[in-house]
Amino acid sequence: MAAPDYEARNQFNKDVVLSLDGPVLTILLNRAEHRNTFSKGMVENLVEVLDLADRDDRVRAIIVTAEHTAPAYCSGADISGGWKVLWKEEAEKEGIHAHRDGGGQLTLAVLSCRKITIAAVNGHAAGVGMTAMQLPFDFRFVWEGAKLAFPFVRRGIVPEAVSTYLLPKLIGLSRANSLLLTGATVSPTSPYISALYHQILPNREDVYPAAKAFAQELANNTAQVSIAYAKGLLQHPGDSAEENHLLDSQAIKLLASSHDGADGAQAFLERRKPKFTDTLSKNSSPWYPWWRRIDVKHHRSKL
Amino acid sequence: MAAPDYEARNQFNKDVVLSLDGPVLTILLNRAEHRNTFSKGMVENLVEVLDLADRDDRVRAIIVTAEHTAPAYCSGADISGGWKVLWKEEAEKEGIHAHRDGGGQLTLAVLSCRKITIAAVNGHAAGVGMTAMQLPFDFRFVWEGAKLAFPFVRRGIVPEAVSTYLLPKLIGLSRANSLLLTGATVSPTSPYISALYHQILPNREDVYPAAKAFAQELANNTAQVSIAYAKGLLQHPGDSAEENHLLDSQAIKLLASSHDGADGAQAFLERRKPKFTDTLSKNSSPWYPWWRRIDVKHHRSKL
Amino acid sequence: MAAPDYEARNQFNKDVVLSLDGPVLTILLNRAEHRNTFSKGMVENLVEVLDLADRDDRVRAIIVTAEHTAPAYCSGADISGGWKVLWKEEAEKEGIHAHRDGGGQLTLAVLSCRKITIAAVNGHAAGVGMTAMQLPFDFRFVWEGAKLAFPFVRRGIVPEAVSTYLLPKLIGLSRANSLLLTGATVSPTSPYISALYHQILPNREDVYPAAKAFAQELANNTAQVSIAYAKGLLQHPGDSAEENHLLDSQAIKLLASSHDGADGAQAFLERRKPKFTDTLSKNSSPWYPWWRRIDVKHHRSKL
Repeated sequence: MAAPDYEARNQFNKDVVLSLDGPVLTILLNRAEHRNTFSKGMVENLVEVLDLADRDDRVRAIIVTAEHTAPAYCSGADISGGWKVLWKEEAEKEGIHAHRDGGGQLTLAVLSCRKITIAAVNGHAAGVGMTAMQLPFDFRFVWEGAKLAFPFVRRGIVPEAVSTYLLPKLIGLSRANSLLLTGATVSPTSPYISALYHQILPNREDVYPAAKAFAQELANNTAQVSIAYAKGLLQHPGDSAEENHLLDSQAIKLLASSHDGADGAQAFLERRKPKFTDTLSKNSSPWYPWWRRIDVKHHRSKL
Repeated sequence: MAAPDYEARNQFNKDVVLSLDGPVLTILLNRAEHRNTFSKGMVENLVEVLDLADRDDRVRAIIVTAEHTAPAYCSGADISGGWKVLWKEEAEKEGIHAHRDGGGQLTLAVLSCRKITIAAVNGHAAGVGMTAMQLPFDFRFVWEGAKLAFPFVRRGIVPEAVSTYLLPKLIGLSRANSLLLTGATVSPTSPYISALYHQILPNREDVYPAAKAFAQELANNTAQVSIAYAKGLLQHPGDSAEENHLLDSQAIKLLASSHDGADGAQAFLERRKPKFTDTLSKNSSPWYPWWRRIDVKHHRSKL
Repeated sequence: MAAPDYEARNQFNKDVVLSLDGPVLTILLNRAEHRNTFSKGMVENLVEVLDLADRDDRVRAIIVTAEHTAPAYCSGADISGGWKVLWKEEAEKEGIHAHRDGGGQLTLAVLSCRKITIAAVNGHAAGVGMTAMQLPFDFRFVWEGAKLAFPFVRRGIVPEAVSTYLLPKLIGLSRANSLLLTGATVSPTSPYISALYHQILPNREDVYPAAKAFAQELANNTAQVSIAYAKGLLQHPGDSAEENHLLDSQAIKLLASSHDGADGAQAFLERRKPKFTDTLSKNSSPWYPWWRRIDVKHHRSKL
C-alpha cells in the first residue's frame, strides 16, 4: 500500500481536518459553526480514514479532537432537518431492518482499528458526541468543565452507536444506568462518569496537548504488534477463562518469538530501551484476527 | 386492559401498601414489626403488581421503599420457621431441581418490568433486602447510615435472587467478591459498594422524597417507549458490538419514526420541552422484545 | 485422601515455602534474591499445591505472599535466559498452538480452587506478578507503596495469564485499558487500579498479618461449602438472569437443606454463632460443578 496522503483529503472533505505528525494522526472536527455536530459526510470520511490509518504502518496512534475554542467537542447528530437526514434511501425503501446507524458505523470502525485510539474531549459533548465519538476509543481525555450528556430518552429515541453494549463494559451497569436512563448532564468528575476518563484536565486548551504527548510516548515505547494483539484480546477475550488462556498463550508465543518480543526481553536484561521495528503489514500472523468478523452490511432482499 | 386499582389490593394483602400518585407507583413494605422481612405473600403480590404496572400506561416509575421509622428497609427473608418456610410443596415432592427461589422470582419480575424502577433504601438491608429488593432496579437511593450486608456465606447458604449474575455486572467482580464472599456489613459510602447507588442521602426521611422527585422528573421528561427500549438494550445488548449495532439501529429507526421521536427532535430545534404521548400499549413494535424470553417455570416430570 | 504434609514439600522445592496454620495455608514466594521472579518450578509446584489444598478439608483459605523485606512481591517472569526459558520442548516441536502459558496455568489453578484465595502483595509487582499472582484470587491486599505494572506492550509481547479476560471483569474495561494498553507503573491508590484491592495498607509489614487475620475470620465464620458454591456462582453465573436464577435456586435448596444451612438459620434465630461442620469431601452434591470443565491440555497431533 502506498503511504496515504491524509492532508490531501482535507480539500475534499472539510468536515474534519487531518494531520499526520510523526506516528500520531490527528482528526480535528471542523464544524465549529455547527457545534461540531455529526454529519453524514463525517461518518463516511472517518470510516475511510480509520481504515487507511489501520493499514498504514507509520500511524501508531489516532486522536480525535476539536478546536478548544469551538462551542463544543461534539453536540450530537446534526438534526437540523429532523432525524430523517440520518436515513439512507436504501433503508427507507427496504424497511427498518435495513437501517444502519451512522454512529454505530463509526463505533465499529474505531473498534476495528488496530492502532491506539484517543478521544481528546476538549469541550461539551452530547448524544453521538458521547457515544461514537468517545466510547469505542482506547483512551478518553477530557476537560473538567465539559458538560456531558446522553440525552436520548429525553428526545424520544434510544442510546445508539453501540453504547448500550460498551458503556456497561467500560464502567459497570450501575453507572451506565445512571447515565443512559436519565439522560442527565454531568461533569467529568461526577462519580457516574469519572471512571470513563483516562485523564481529566482543568483547562480546555491542555486536553489535546496532553493526549498528544501521551500518544507520542506510547508510540515511542510500545510495540505496534503488541498493541494490536492486546487490543484484540481485550475486545475478543473468548467466552471463558480457559478459552482466553488458549488465546493469550498463542499470542504470547507468537510475539515472544518475534523480533520485537526478543528485543523487549533483551533490552530489559541490558537495561536499555527496546528498539521495536515489527509492523502489522509485515509481522502479523495469519492467526490474527482469531475471531470471526461479523458482517453488518444490509443485503438487499429484493433484486 | 382496565386501569388497575392498586389501592384496592391493599385490603387483601397487608404486606405491602400500594399507592399511585400521578405517574409514580409506590410500593411500601409494610412489615415493620417483622423488620420488613421478605414473606411468601410478598413475592406473589409484588410479582403481580409489577406485571400490572408494566402493562398500565399511566405508570411511568415504580418505587419500592419502607417507612423511614421502621427498624429496617428489609432484613432479609422471614426465616422464623427455618428456611423451610420458603419451600413450596411441589419442590419438596419433585426434588431440588423443582425449587424456584422466591427472591429470584421477584428479581426476574423487576427486570422484566419496562417502567423505571427505583429502590429507596431508607433503612438497614440484609440478604434478600440487598439482592431482590435492590439489584434488579434501575436506580438505588440509600440512607448514608444504612447497614448493608449480603451475609449468605455466614448462614451456610449462597447468595441468591440472581445476585451472582447482577452484582458483578453492576459494580465489577472485584467489589462483588468483597461483598458476596465475605458477608461483611458495610456502609453505603464504603468503596466496596458506593458505585451501586445513584444517590446517598444523609437523612433517612429524605430518601423516599428524593427518589420520588427523581421519578417524577424522569416521568415528565422522558419518553415511555424510549425508556422501555433503552432498558431492553441494556439488559439484552447482544453478544457482540456488531449485534448491538444491528439492535440499536433497528430501535432508533423505529423510535425516530414515531410521534415521540419526531417531537423530541422538533422540540430540540424549537428549544421547547417535548410532548411525549406514545405508550407501550399502543406504540411498541412487534419487534420488541427482540430477545427470547426464557421460561423458568418448573414443569412437572410426573403426571 | 490422607492429609497432605505441605511443609514436607519445602525440602524438595525451595522456590516457595508452605506453612499450614490452622485453616490457613500460606505460600511464601522464596526467591527474594531473584526479586521473586516466576520460575518454571514455581508453576508446577503451585498448581500441585493448589490442587492438594482444594481437596484438603482442613484448608479454608490460601494466602500467597512474599517476605516483606524482599525487593519485590513478584517482578514478573524470570527471563534471564530470554523468553525461551518459558517454553516447553513439546510446544517447540508441535508448533505454537501447543504452547500453554505458565502464568495462565497458575491462573486456572487458582480459579478452580474452591477455597478462599488471597494475594498479600507486600512489595512491588510487575508482569505475571500482577496477572497470575493477583487477578484470579478472590481478594487482594496490597502495600500502599507498591509499584505496580503490566508492562507487556513495552516488552514486545501481550498481557498473559488470562488477564485480558479477568481484569475487565474485575474493574471494568475503561480501567483495564488504562493499565494493559499503557504498561504504565501505578500506585495502589491510583484510580486506575484501586478497585482491584480489598485493602490497601500503609506499611509493607502489615500486609500479610492483615490478610491472615482476614482469612482466619472468614475461616471461622463462613461455611466451607457455601464459599465453594458462591465462588462457583460468581465464576459460572450462567448466560442470562434466568439461567442464574435456576442455578442459584438449586444451590440454595441444596445448601439450605444441609446441616450447615440448617444451623445457619437456627443460629440466627438463637442469636449465637453457627457451628459449620460440613466439608467439601463429604457434603458437596454431584450437581457441583454444574458447568463443563474445559480441557486446555495440548493433545499431540503426531503419534
